[in-house]
Amino acid sequence: MALFANEFNSLNDLFIFELKDIYDAEYQITEALPKMAEAASDPQLKSAFNEHLRETENHISRLESVFAKIGRAPERDTCAAMKGLIKEGQDIIRAKGDNSVRDAGLIAAAQRVEHYEMATYGTVRALAQRLGLSDCAQTLQQTLNEEGETDKKLTRIAESGPNTQSPQQQTAYA
Amino acid sequence: MALFANEFNSLNDLFIFELKDIYDAEYQITEALPKMAEAASDPQLKSAFNEHLRETENHISRLESVFAKIGRAPERDTCAAMKGLIKEGQDIIRAKGDNSVRDAGLIAAAQRVEHYEMATYGTVRALAQRLGLSDCAQTLQQTLNEEGETDKKLTRIAESGPNTQSPQQQTAYA
Repeated sequence: MALFANEFNSLNDLFIFELKDIYDAEYQITEALPKMAEAASDPQLKSAFNEHLRETENHISRLESVFAKIGRAPERDTCAAMKGLIKEGQDIIRAKGDNSVRDAGLIAAAQRVEHYEMATYGTVRALAQRLGLSDCAQTLQQTLNEEGETDKKLTRIAESGPNTQSPQQQTAYA
Repeated sequence: MALFANEFNSLNDLFIFELKDIYDAEYQITEALPKMAEAASDPQLKSAFNEHLRETENHISRLESVFAKIGRAPERDTCAAMKGLIKEGQDIIRAKGDNSVRDAGLIAAAQRVEHYEMATYGTVRALAQRLGLSDCAQTLQQTLNEEGETDKKLTRIAESGPNTQSPQQQTAYA
């Protein structure tokens, strides 16, 4: 959270504000993903987290190219939401109990991170378009597509992996 | 963030963990929305925030009905991610500058909140299904649909409202 009030005099100010936020968020994610991969039991999930780490490093490079295109040095502004999202992931990493249930929890935490990114990339892509920065918009759209794909992949792992347990195996109330 | 490690021995434990998180998140949102509505300049946006406040109160009642269906008293567990998301909204509320740009910032912050909820309701709905709690799954699906609709409505306001400024009106780099 900014100590001083931000000043938004143009959509461009908002565009830069949001770019700094997601640039910081991506860095936070690169620190969290190895811990998520280590905590995952299902090899498919472990590999998805490791693959997404490589993608995230690429998303950082893409953001740096967007900063370059608008003639600015890349800058991070602490993303408070991502700090909270990652804390939630840490709660799952630290949890005890059944490995497949912990995996389902890790997937849930990771999908919330993906949704944060999808919302923010949706915003910065739309702002780039409105600012006539079609090249930046295209670059940001590429990342947006990849975040969406990761979210779908996590759903597939949750539905098809060892986390799928029949209701009979669970303590159900119905 | 939990002070002590959680224990997930069944999908049911994870289901309750996630329910407590989103129940707290919804309460946090009811406190934030009136401030968002007050800060919005566009009457359409102000009204969307006020309408979503009424919806959110209904989402809380639905969560209470889900807790009742599984024989538990409703319980909140501080949602760290929502705290961060709301802090980001506060940064926009406190921002100075052009009203239509601040509105675009408020929309971006609200869409991130919606995406958090969509991800979490997607998870609890799926967990309810796997646990054979089809009645709970249906209730949670209703809220999930409404969060998705709110997200789309915010996009429409951003695209069609007074926040839409042509690139010529902006300080664009292209």
